Amino acid sequence: MREAEFIATLRPFATHPAARSLADDAAVLGDLVLTHDMIAEGVHFLADADPRDVAWRLVAVNLSDLAAKGAEPVGVLLGYALGDGRWDFEFVEGLGEALAAFDVALLGGDTLRPATAAPRTLGLTAIGRVPASGAPSRAGARAGDTLWVTGVIGDAGAGLELAMARAREPASLLEAYQRPRPLLADGRVLAPLVHAMMDVSDGLLIDASRMATASGLAVEIDLGAVPLSDAYRAFRGDDRAARVAAATAGDDYQLLFALDPDLTPPVAATLVGRFADGAGVTLIHGGTPIPLPAKLGFEH
Amino acid sequence: MREAEFIATLRPFATHPAARSLADDAAVLGDLVLTHDMIAEGVHFLADADPRDVAWRLVAVNLSDLAAKGAEPVGVLLGYALGDGRWDFEFVEGLGEALAAFDVALLGGDTLRPATAAPRTLGLTAIGRVPASGAPSRAGARAGDTLWVTGVIGDAGAGLELAMARAREPASLLEAYQRPRPLLADGRVLAPLVHAMMDVSDGLLIDASRMATASGLAVEIDLGAVPLSDAYRAFRGDDRAARVAAATAGDDYQLLFALDPDLTPPVAATLVGRFADGAGVTLIHGGTPIPLPAKLGFEH
Repeated sequence: MREAEFIATLRPFATHPAARSLADDAAVLGDLVLTHDMIAEGVHFLADADPRDVAWRLVAVNLSDLAAKGAEPVGVLLGYALGDGRWDFEFVEGLGEALAAFDVALLGGDTLRPATAAPRTLGLTAIGRVPASGAPSRAGARAGDTLWVTGVIGDAGAGLELAMARAREPASLLEAYQRPRPLLADGRVLAPLVHAMMDVSDGLLIDASRMATASGLAVEIDLGAVPLSDAYRAFRGDDRAARVAAATAGDDYQLLFALDPDLTPPVAATLVGRFADGAGVTLIHGGTPIPLPAKLGFEH
Repeated sequence: MREAEFIATLRPFATHPAARSLADDAAVLGDLVLTHDMIAEGVHFLADADPRDVAWRLVAVNLSDLAAKGAEPVGVLLGYALGDGRWDFEFVEGLGEALAAFDVALLGGDTLRPATAAPRTLGLTAIGRVPASGAPSRAGARAGDTLWVTGVIGDAGAGLELAMARAREPASLLEAYQRPRPLLADGRVLAPLVHAMMDVSDGLLIDASRMATASGLAVEIDLGAVPLSDAYRAFRGDDRAARVAAATAGDDYQLLFALDPDLTPPVAATLVGRFADGAGVTLIHGGTPIPLPAKLGFEH
């Protein structure tokens, strides 16, 4: 069963408004936001990844969902399968670094010892407090809204390639992949202003397409506007293929948001597209539509 | 690393009072109780278990932690690794049965597709609302308190043996193992009255010993008083060995609680022991102390 089908079979059980019909990245229960994300060896991290980086990633991907709701993190619950002692010890080190970096407490969780050695799967539940203005969803974009993304896109995807090749440079690209930083402060500033917001975990194109679908709209994205870092351009160039690679790579954990066209966001962000009535994604390059890539991003 | 060591290394990160120093079965954040429990193939369920029973178990073990806090369930977040279609489909069926049976909504969660087929690990986070009287901990027993347990003990352990032997009878023992029922109503009634409460997941002796340790006390348990079902006695007898087997078996999900000696609980429960100053567990049989079994219950 594919993820989308599985979620469709679960939807009848989402009988509480906090579930937002399972169409959002987090549940919103009173003034709390709750999210649960897992990461798995061979899917979200490499078998030879530094356990400290794995722990950091587990925390960061969950806090990134809170950032997209404008929430202030309160704490996390950890679901951990015990392995060999050194891995476990280094994982705890990285967990401590991440919790300290983002000022979040460990509230509880569960550990187990698997029956057989197997690729690791780790889970985390993050709890945050909703801003007074409410938690934005991914479904609120309006026709005419502009689409913005924070920071730069593609660095983490390039960093993953470097990590797979066991390369050590360029360090900034590796760092973007190994130590993603959830944009909690940006999320809090943006939450009262945006019509819709989500984090870019699977790729700019696929995540923008999901926001458009959830909002019942079409979205047009200007490939030339996708913000690339100098390091990315030095590594992969700045042609159309390099831009498509950036726009379809995952793991950037930037914030993607829909804004009233009369507003300019008060954070470092780039205008990359626009919503309109209709459905689907249109990709523009040099002023004209170009064919969509076969994959818009990472699909589960 | 053993579970206890691992939790000790995590304790410095439990900087929020909601964490209860990681010494309790759930976090208590404002008026909410949050718990996260995982179950794994080969550890908590058999490889050939009915996926519907696995889903039921995942929900039941988490709601049982809420029951021990006297909490009213609000919803759950599911962490699920997709497998083959039929297993996934039947899992969803069982999940629906359990959520309906206990009137709980699915609020969200995450799915992933593992890189390789491996024994399944499933996680659930359950959220409940704390009673006005507060959520009891496992650490509040006082010297002189009586120790009580709801229902009967040992049926699930016998049921596990039957399931491993692929037996179909006695049905009530198999049912106790395959479809544990979290005692939510009993928990709500007991919460305002008890000094300490927890669920019996790993065995009566080990869980009573954990309550005594957390409370800084000794506990004496009368093996002859441990409540056994007629089905259990018919299956395994009623001698000392049968009683030790029941008192050290897991998966019963009864409630274990410490009560002022002047009180009698308003639910179906049996007086099985007493707390005193000191430390450790003393097991009594026929009025005299007997040696403790090598294992007090299931240890992770």
